[in-house]
Amino acid sequence: MSDDSESAFPAATIEALLAPAVGRLAPNTSLSPLPYDLNAGVPDRATLPAAGLLAAMQRALDADAAGALTYGGQQGYEPLRAWIAARESQEGGLDVTSAQVTLTSGSAHGIDNIAATFVGEGDIVVVGAPTYPGAIRTFRARGATIIESPQDDDGLIPSALARVLDTRRMTGQQAKLLYIQPNYDNPSGATLPVERREAIVALCRQHGVLIVEDDAYTGIDLDGPPPPSMFAIAGGRGVMRVGTFSKTVATGLRVAWITSQPEIVQKLVFMRFDNGASPLLHRMVLEYLRSGEYEPHVEGLRDLYRERRDASADALREFCEPYVTFKTPRGGFFHWLKLRPGLDARTVQAAAAEQGVAVTPGTGYFATPDSAELNGADRIRLVFSALPPEELREAISRFGRALEQVASSTR
Amino acid sequence: MSDDSESAFPAATIEALLAPAVGRLAPNTSLSPLPYDLNAGVPDRATLPAAGLLAAMQRALDADAAGALTYGGQQGYEPLRAWIAARESQEGGLDVTSAQVTLTSGSAHGIDNIAATFVGEGDIVVVGAPTYPGAIRTFRARGATIIESPQDDDGLIPSALARVLDTRRMTGQQAKLLYIQPNYDNPSGATLPVERREAIVALCRQHGVLIVEDDAYTGIDLDGPPPPSMFAIAGGRGVMRVGTFSKTVATGLRVAWITSQPEIVQKLVFMRFDNGASPLLHRMVLEYLRSGEYEPHVEGLRDLYRERRDASADALREFCEPYVTFKTPRGGFFHWLKLRPGLDARTVQAAAAEQGVAVTPGTGYFATPDSAELNGADRIRLVFSALPPEELREAISRFGRALEQVASSTR
Repeated sequence: MSDDSESAFPAATIEALLAPAVGRLAPNTSLSPLPYDLNAGVPDRATLPAAGLLAAMQRALDADAAGALTYGGQQGYEPLRAWIAARESQEGGLDVTSAQVTLTSGSAHGIDNIAATFVGEGDIVVVGAPTYPGAIRTFRARGATIIESPQDDDGLIPSALARVLDTRRMTGQQAKLLYIQPNYDNPSGATLPVERREAIVALCRQHGVLIVEDDAYTGIDLDGPPPPSMFAIAGGRGVMRVGTFSKTVATGLRVAWITSQPEIVQKLVFMRFDNGASPLLHRMVLEYLRSGEYEPHVEGLRDLYRERRDASADALREFCEPYVTFKTPRGGFFHWLKLRPGLDARTVQAAAAEQGVAVTPGTGYFATPDSAELNGADRIRLVFSALPPEELREAISRFGRALEQVASSTR
Repeated sequence: MSDDSESAFPAATIEALLAPAVGRLAPNTSLSPLPYDLNAGVPDRATLPAAGLLAAMQRALDADAAGALTYGGQQGYEPLRAWIAARESQEGGLDVTSAQVTLTSGSAHGIDNIAATFVGEGDIVVVGAPTYPGAIRTFRARGATIIESPQDDDGLIPSALARVLDTRRMTGQQAKLLYIQPNYDNPSGATLPVERREAIVALCRQHGVLIVEDDAYTGIDLDGPPPPSMFAIAGGRGVMRVGTFSKTVATGLRVAWITSQPEIVQKLVFMRFDNGASPLLHRMVLEYLRSGEYEPHVEGLRDLYRERRDASADALREFCEPYVTFKTPRGGFFHWLKLRPGLDARTVQAAAAEQGVAVTPGTGYFATPDSAELNGADRIRLVFSALPPEELREAISRFGRALEQVASSTR
């Protein structure tokens, strides 16, 4: 058999066999090897509750080892869904049941589950400009046409969204989904005011557009609780709210959920192809949530990240002020810096790398980075979550030097 | 806002927004509430190594809690990939590296990852008749056209496959993928002889068809090791071998992998949308594999399932012989029973349910169940893995009464 084995199926043959979607997608983001990483939106490593999770796993296995170690179904462990539904009910003032929650392997997987269920070739998905690039590639992989709607410092602008939706309707290609992160948007950091939430829910209802409310950073509330969720404002109809324990417990868990109206949840569960997520993780997480350790843990995270946000904002004003402006975010992990006219984001990124600092140019956060206007060439995303205040200060002073260098060479 | 909330987005509106793929798919399988479940292909619950896994998780967290609890990348934990690559090298006589392995959240998720990477609308995927229905629905969800190629007691028939591939080529629509379970096929239980493996690898190479070798049941070897893998026979080119710890450790882990040539693995990693699986699970599994408990555990499983296979085969001969024939499988969890002419699988299923026994009609295992020939109406899949011998014997004696009843009423 193996005479021709080494030459069989060369790379060009594999390329030719790929699904058409492969060629449409940008690569996934990766971690930086630079000494000061202000690029990856990851939680602080020292805060991970390893002991609490290990004890929770022990309790889960003691209680029902066979249940924890056998297929748990596509929708996921019901008591954990009930916990999430109860919290949702309490926060949003709706009566949400466990049948309205489905568990996913991280919120990114939740977005993929939504895309599998609602997006066919050529379907329109509206996203903010900027927005989370992982969502763009997930929707595109299912054949979506991505249409951008601009953000300002307060997030998505309802009047602009209205124009986008009207235009789509006039062309006979109605949008199907609106993808939005109303709290602590990645990358803009914006928190959508309640009036905008109401206006956007009303607009989407009028146009028959389903809202994908990505709440990946909710919980990392640095200035008190955010406004009511769009799910709550919409009375639980026409919204898929995606939540996760990644930021409040650990990104390594891959335990997240989608809350929606029952008809939608049934379809999301139907469009699963993984025989469900790990019931061991679901039970471990629930035991941890019930331990009494979770609430003080999240409080501690808020204190920690608030300190880092404030230290980084101070350092940005001290070291970078002539070159950048920004609005301090109410939560999450990011500053979204606007560069002074004449400074280009990729040039700044390269100069910062020379100083040992990884930052992210804004260009990666736009669905159409080659457009003349909304292209992110005047923006930098700077992560404040992963480093302690002293290191942040050092990193940002180096970043300031990089800005100065670029400014002086382009002057 | 909420005056019209209750009436917003009614079920019919949601239906109209669904992706076209949703309407093409059969439901997922579900567990049976009947007292004797010979329907679900699940491992024995008492054999799950809960204590070993808990100790493994403790070691994983002690060694590197931050690594275990933070994003682990789309390809998964390298040392676990290296362990899998080393075993693959040892078994298949190839030099496989960790770059040739990508970790997935269960083997079903692996098949979905393959479908995302290679299947576009209208692409041809060839499967056995019968085959695993989860694979059919996963490929269909990505737009595949499923073409069946018949199995006999030894699995896929090379001459028939040659005709299928020739026909496709003549119509100008070449097949892209062949999905096959060479060991202990679900549902047929067949193990493909080495000559057939060689013939099928050669055929697929000739036609430029990639092989998806689903090894979900490999390891549950009841009559010694199976023949070499198709991946090994193909010299590691043009085959994606999907393996899992579900059957040898626990289905609740959702830890599986795909081994292939490097160019293919890179594309599979590129077509991930879940930010990777849980590194906590990867590290726990690797600690367990290294503990020295894994090999004797799998030996114990083989003894346990061999006893159940033999007890169920004896009982089938004792209680069901005039009505069913079967070839005893060399591994896995199933008997694939051929019903005597005149007995219909769904009628038999209903009669068995009246006796408290859940079995699965063959009709669910065919991509075109309405075809006149290969439709599974003369077949029953009977699981022997989940019950101990005495309960199996009781269940099969009840199943025999059901067969007798159906036979006497259709006589």
